[in-house]
Amino acid sequence: MRQAKLAELLATDGHSVSTFAIDKIRLEGSVVQKTLIREAVDDAACVVMPLPVTSREGMLNAPLSGGLYTTREVLSALRPEQVLCAGRIDEATRELAGSMGITLIDYLEREELAVANAVAAAEGAIQLIMEETPITVCHSNCLVIGFGRIGKILSHRLRGLGAHVTATARSWADLAWIKAYGYEAEETYNIDASLSRYDVVINTVPARVLGESRLMKLRRGCLCLDLASKPGGLDFTAASKLGVKAVWALSLPGEVAPVTSGAIIRDTIYNILNEKGIAL
Amino acid sequence: MRQAKLAELLATDGHSVSTFAIDKIRLEGSVVQKTLIREAVDDAACVVMPLPVTSREGMLNAPLSGGLYTTREVLSALRPEQVLCAGRIDEATRELAGSMGITLIDYLEREELAVANAVAAAEGAIQLIMEETPITVCHSNCLVIGFGRIGKILSHRLRGLGAHVTATARSWADLAWIKAYGYEAEETYNIDASLSRYDVVINTVPARVLGESRLMKLRRGCLCLDLASKPGGLDFTAASKLGVKAVWALSLPGEVAPVTSGAIIRDTIYNILNEKGIAL
Amino acid sequence: MRQAKLAELLATDGHSVSTFAIDKIRLEGSVVQKTLIREAVDDAACVVMPLPVTSREGMLNAPLSGGLYTTREVLSALRPEQVLCAGRIDEATRELAGSMGITLIDYLEREELAVANAVAAAEGAIQLIMEETPITVCHSNCLVIGFGRIGKILSHRLRGLGAHVTATARSWADLAWIKAYGYEAEETYNIDASLSRYDVVINTVPARVLGESRLMKLRRGCLCLDLASKPGGLDFTAASKLGVKAVWALSLPGEVAPVTSGAIIRDTIYNILNEKGIAL
Amino acid sequence: MRQAKLAELLATDGHSVSTFAIDKIRLEGSVVQKTLIREAVDDAACVVMPLPVTSREGMLNAPLSGGLYTTREVLSALRPEQVLCAGRIDEATRELAGSMGITLIDYLEREELAVANAVAAAEGAIQLIMEETPITVCHSNCLVIGFGRIGKILSHRLRGLGAHVTATARSWADLAWIKAYGYEAEETYNIDASLSRYDVVINTVPARVLGESRLMKLRRGCLCLDLASKPGGLDFTAASKLGVKAVWALSLPGEVAPVTSGAIIRDTIYNILNEKGIAL
Repeated sequence: MRQAKLAELLATDGHSVSTFAIDKIRLEGSVVQKTLIREAVDDAACVVMPLPVTSREGMLNAPLSGGLYTTREVLSALRPEQVLCAGRIDEATRELAGSMGITLIDYLEREELAVANAVAAAEGAIQLIMEETPITVCHSNCLVIGFGRIGKILSHRLRGLGAHVTATARSWADLAWIKAYGYEAEETYNIDASLSRYDVVINTVPARVLGESRLMKLRRGCLCLDLASKPGGLDFTAASKLGVKAVWALSLPGEVAPVTSGAIIRDTIYNILNEKGIAL
Repeated sequence: MRQAKLAELLATDGHSVSTFAIDKIRLEGSVVQKTLIREAVDDAACVVMPLPVTSREGMLNAPLSGGLYTTREVLSALRPEQVLCAGRIDEATRELAGSMGITLIDYLEREELAVANAVAAAEGAIQLIMEETPITVCHSNCLVIGFGRIGKILSHRLRGLGAHVTATARSWADLAWIKAYGYEAEETYNIDASLSRYDVVINTVPARVLGESRLMKLRRGCLCLDLASKPGGLDFTAASKLGVKAVWALSLPGEVAPVTSGAIIRDTIYNILNEKGIAL
Repeated sequence: MRQAKLAELLATDGHSVSTFAIDKIRLEGSVVQKTLIREAVDDAACVVMPLPVTSREGMLNAPLSGGLYTTREVLSALRPEQVLCAGRIDEATRELAGSMGITLIDYLEREELAVANAVAAAEGAIQLIMEETPITVCHSNCLVIGFGRIGKILSHRLRGLGAHVTATARSWADLAWIKAYGYEAEETYNIDASLSRYDVVINTVPARVLGESRLMKLRRGCLCLDLASKPGGLDFTAASKLGVKAVWALSLPGEVAPVTSGAIIRDTIYNILNEKGIAL
Repeated sequence: MRQAKLAELLATDGHSVSTFAIDKIRLEGSVVQKTLIREAVDDAACVVMPLPVTSREGMLNAPLSGGLYTTREVLSALRPEQVLCAGRIDEATRELAGSMGITLIDYLEREELAVANAVAAAEGAIQLIMEETPITVCHSNCLVIGFGRIGKILSHRLRGLGAHVTATARSWADLAWIKAYGYEAEETYNIDASLSRYDVVINTVPARVLGESRLMKLRRGCLCLDLASKPGGLDFTAASKLGVKAVWALSLPGEVAPVTSGAIIRDTIYNILNEKGIAL
């Protein structure tokens, strides 16, 4: 759906856009939905493949198509001088492309996309918190574990909604940043004493920060949200045993805001083209 | 459910609490659930009836009870020297109470409750916006029609989430307040020229501001939220005909945040007792 | 100076502007500086007199002129059908105008001007706090006494700079508003217990809130700012005796931001003309 | 003065504190002001030298002392097992210390100190803007050039005061951060088209961003603030020729907030001791 929205957004900007392997829905605007890969890509200065690029090894991720396509047949239609972008490129696809003399750019590795996605992920987290708690975010005590991209933006937004925000980090520098933005600061691995204070705890660190002993210290009714990618930072088995309400939320951007998510990829594609000196 | 939470919250504060007509669920803490009205109210310094107090004329609003009770039998158990509170008291109940020498205080008419409820309603509106739009609130263009209690807080929160906020008012003074808080200001009945700019339009004015001619000016995909009490400010028939996505959201506080909602009534009850010189 | 800036701002908007009794400085743009009152006002749809209108009884407040003019000679040149505005009109001037069949509109009594001025006054207060304290506003504990116009905006801005803000009010409703915006709330006449916590105390209430007994409770080094108009809310004699640093700041808007201040009067004049159906 | 405040702050925390070369003023609390360097340092676990450590080559920076001391005589009194901190250590001092077997830690190079100083510098900049402009920060158009430490915090604070903030950066990632926080984003070397829009321009980039051709594009009356360390980013000669109001503001933290500034050094010293496993 994100790819579909992306195609429409590019067409709205006045670009000539063709798609391949989108046949279950009708796209709006001037987008041309092709059924042959070569027809779709031949005139393109830039080809954008999905995120993730494969659904299972060797197969193009194409849920909006009735057909099944191998990455090999798609890659065979591409030419090295085209700008070729894809998201979360697996090793096999990268090797296959390499063997065909083609270089794929993984837009998911672009820092500006990661930052923009963090905005959407932070909002998705707030929506979840609103849905899963019987209290208002305003006046609630929230603990944000980790002060990376999502931690920074989520803290900012929670405060914007009137929550009391405590954020954690490991380095003195990040702790100084937390204070500079006006939140309470705690060291990530030194939160045990304060854990019983919070109404909501959100983990963004991909390490087991919230094990059983810490989960036991939580206030009754506290909501735990884990936004960290695998293996996650929360012991869900222990949470379930202890009756702690815990939610593991991945891929929030695409789910809660597919249009914004498509626009983020579009902007990143534009930046890539801009860097390569290709006029838009 | 709000009444149930209220009972638990009062008990948590150390008060001795009895309930009547709550028999479908078990309450926590030291709350005593009575089945006879006289037993429930006899020792009480203060009796709190539900919001709204009646479900239909003459009948106590008691969805958590298997029984049916008339307001008459409940009121008969009360004594004038007790502090008697209820929410959204209808004319018939007020007259009945008067004829029995009893004065009911409508906590819904308390300004501090209205303000605190507006906080919860504004959050409920934000949750709805997040659920109903495919874009992030951050960077979206939002129009808040009316700068009363909900308008003020909703504008503040939307801005805290990174939205571009335009708010409307009729008086020069309120327009000055809108600018003082850093939002764009428009006159409520002079929004036609800017209507096509918004991704989300939220009405808080209980007057037909959004009729067909204005709805036609909205950008495609714009979400309309009507938070105004009856008769509402949006022509839903026209919206449906024009394909405008429109949601009428009433009673948001109780739905999205029953615990906060219960706490708000508790605090208001405390204020009422405080004013009457009754120690807590 | 405010009047001078106002004249320039009106000329910048394309209006034809004449001045009277401004002869010490040269104004910019198309402003015509007249030396005869009748020449200055004759073609005017609207005449704007200074704030305050008199320097001492019966005399026009005209510090930018070498001459001395009575209000009588100025008023004699005016016609009832012109829109006649002045600031802080004293009783004598109002009576004189009345006896001549002329109605003066006091723009200082307009609510929208008061709100806009509060924005400038709040900023002036922040500038003073920055200048008078050896600590940053960020992380400081600030008490704002009173939640009227200035209290509301000052609290908002202090929080925007990262201060911990406590605001006071007397009514439950205003206390609810304070909490709704995320500040700590205290009752205005019940602050004694917390007074030792603050680095800065700002009074906006025109009543003796900060007498000797309260000043004695302040933390050493605490800055006290009194923004209330006469008689003020702080006992300066006691403050001096106790070694409390206290500043009485009046007329902040005109002093710290004369251009903004002129623009505020201009906008208010426009609103007045608009209400009278006079096209700009 | 910062060193003096630091000594008092450390004593307030319960530490045993001696000073050397502070004899012009009397310090408060339990601080002991020694006149012999050896007496001052002998019992110390940690010795803190000034910022900058030397006033001119080889001489201790000691403006609060009537005496003159060489760094050699001070360093001679120190022992390698003490934690030895100093600010902005010049090459000669570092070499001298090295030749004596002593390692000096430059606290100015600590990231957490730099972040905390940026908070104070940003506030100092805001104070300057308030003092130097005849308009309110609220509603003003501000351009912050560079999105490093000071740029980030200054943008946040200006927005907190109601300004319209545009920030610049060179990388796509930083531009994404600027948008994530809700400011307008421009590329640092691509600001020419928008320059005429701003009331205030603040440079934080240590490169000649504001040369004559750009200064010419500024709106009349625009205030330029240069916060970049030498060589600065603004052509002051051109500014003067063009009549552009330009201020070069260095060392803001120490000037505008000496107590906060002392506290920042204290906290950094604590962090250094903590890392070395020395109990406080």
